Amino acid sequence: MSLDLGADVVSLTESVVNIESVSQNEKALADDVEEALGAVAHLEVTRIGHSIVARTDLGRAERVVIAGHLDTVPLNHNLPARNDGTRLHGLGSCDMKGGVAVALRLAHDLATPNRDITYVFYEAEEIDDAYNGLGIVARQRPDLVRGDFAILMEPSDAVVEAGCQGTLRVEVTTRGERAHSARSWRGVNAIHGAAEILRRLNEYDARKPVIDGLEYHEGLNAVLISGGVATNVLPDECVVTVNFRFAPDRSEAEALVFVKEFFDGYEVVVTDSASGALPGLGVPAAKAFVDAVGGTVNPKFGWTDVARFTGLGIPAVNYGPGDPMLAHKQEEFVPLDQLRSCEATLRTWLGAES
Amino acid sequence: MSLDLGADVVSLTESVVNIESVSQNEKALADDVEEALGAVAHLEVTRIGHSIVARTDLGRAERVVIAGHLDTVPLNHNLPARNDGTRLHGLGSCDMKGGVAVALRLAHDLATPNRDITYVFYEAEEIDDAYNGLGIVARQRPDLVRGDFAILMEPSDAVVEAGCQGTLRVEVTTRGERAHSARSWRGVNAIHGAAEILRRLNEYDARKPVIDGLEYHEGLNAVLISGGVATNVLPDECVVTVNFRFAPDRSEAEALVFVKEFFDGYEVVVTDSASGALPGLGVPAAKAFVDAVGGTVNPKFGWTDVARFTGLGIPAVNYGPGDPMLAHKQEEFVPLDQLRSCEATLRTWLGAES
Repeated sequence: MSLDLGADVVSLTESVVNIESVSQNEKALADDVEEALGAVAHLEVTRIGHSIVARTDLGRAERVVIAGHLDTVPLNHNLPARNDGTRLHGLGSCDMKGGVAVALRLAHDLATPNRDITYVFYEAEEIDDAYNGLGIVARQRPDLVRGDFAILMEPSDAVVEAGCQGTLRVEVTTRGERAHSARSWRGVNAIHGAAEILRRLNEYDARKPVIDGLEYHEGLNAVLISGGVATNVLPDECVVTVNFRFAPDRSEAEALVFVKEFFDGYEVVVTDSASGALPGLGVPAAKAFVDAVGGTVNPKFGWTDVARFTGLGIPAVNYGPGDPMLAHKQEEFVPLDQLRSCEATLRTWLGAES
Repeated sequence: MSLDLGADVVSLTESVVNIESVSQNEKALADDVEEALGAVAHLEVTRIGHSIVARTDLGRAERVVIAGHLDTVPLNHNLPARNDGTRLHGLGSCDMKGGVAVALRLAHDLATPNRDITYVFYEAEEIDDAYNGLGIVARQRPDLVRGDFAILMEPSDAVVEAGCQGTLRVEVTTRGERAHSARSWRGVNAIHGAAEILRRLNEYDARKPVIDGLEYHEGLNAVLISGGVATNVLPDECVVTVNFRFAPDRSEAEALVFVKEFFDGYEVVVTDSASGALPGLGVPAAKAFVDAVGGTVNPKFGWTDVARFTGLGIPAVNYGPGDPMLAHKQEEFVPLDQLRSCEATLRTWLGAES
């Protein structure tokens, strides 16, 4: 067995990081997670695609869902993992294999928690929503993800982050007319036409609304650009892929209206959209968890599956080891003490002897 | 045999157009050209790569090189050829399979021309200079392309076009710093950084110098753009590939100085460079040809292998059927009467009975 769930959380995180699992390449890690959880007597394990669900069934009054995605953004010369004594470095260490390792430790050790627990380890969170493993499980087996409260172990510096921003992706396209580049005045250069799109993006002024006392921070960015036919042909098309991260006081529809107005005069085609989630800290289960882990709450900037849980009617927060600011950065790492404190805090909240 | 060199020039052009030969896919056409010329008793045929050289050896006082490239720019839904009665439409019809067909007709019919003739049908003119078949032949077998004068049958509306503009290709790169697109203020967006590059390109004012009475027309264009890592990651690099077409009164070195100053503040890396050629109409052989075909001369905007011949010490002009403004455009075509007039004019100049 390549994953030893009985090992300490730092070793386990290192093992999980070293099983490369860039989105759509999660099979190897999912196989290992399935095998390791399958050997734990107090769990009932189900696999759907490369997502693994493991549940206790003790008839407790309350059921909590603890979830984490198995995939990472693309490699960037940042594997294998490196432990410098205080931090574990490497692709996915922060987003979010540290959280996955904490959840795997709890799944292994907690045979009789004070709440029933559903652990969900899922594929394809970092790519198009259509592939999202939690979404697939929720559609195919909604019974498997039911619960009274959900903790998504996304990096949050071991502090509760509430709500999440929505995300909208669009392609903004310019058109031109091909011509030989030696006689460019006979055509129309579509790449040059993208100058105005980029100019507007540079002038974008981010909105920072305060909701339930938490300050969100929107963002509008070109994430991809492509255009051109051949090196001696005037290009007739240029596509700028733009990602809008919007605060949870806007709906998806309102976000799209904003983006369409922003790029007025250009073709705008939606390629991905997911709603945000309001903090929802008034819900009793959320409040109880916040109190249990110390009371501090920050806003969540990134879109997370907290929004999906909210959509399913399950109150949810983000809580996990790792600085969210380091997510998707080459130099991401997770502090070893956060791995340990997250594990300890959750153990206590779930009624285990520490 | 798939190419009938005894057919009329319109039929032959249609046959040549219908053998698709996008750059680096010239093998099929080169095979057919080699086979057809190999069957002509008065020619000595040599093949180097996918370039074919065919020569008469009559001991004439003067040797003329008649050259044309076999490749085309990429397909753009413009094959097979279509003859509407006055024009032949289709990929390569203008640039430059019409000229190739005229040369093939002459090669087949002219057993005893008044000048020795070297026909060169070569690969890979539309891509990086390193692949150019005429360049490869000239380096490997310089004896094969020696001559007193060269006619390059690039489209010139059946009028002599003298000189040619140079071409320089550079990659202009912006750098940034990756971050999660939900926390974009933590990174630097390299695609947004390209706005200034495109702004400068839009403000570029083309120079139009008059040289030997001919007005040239420079051009500076983005031909490719690419940037981005993933749809939720702030991009750390954006590359704009720029093509500068420069009048023949600038050297390659001067052209590069101009481009580097134009993109001052950015990384500029040269990926392709070829000098232009001054009109050189003072050379007797050029003057004699111009007189023979009617006296009109236009400037050549596009880079052609006239510059390579000039570099080899062989005076050269462009002269071929087809409107040069249509080269590399989806709707390119060649007028049937220009195919016929180019063939007839060259037959007469080469001393054949018409």
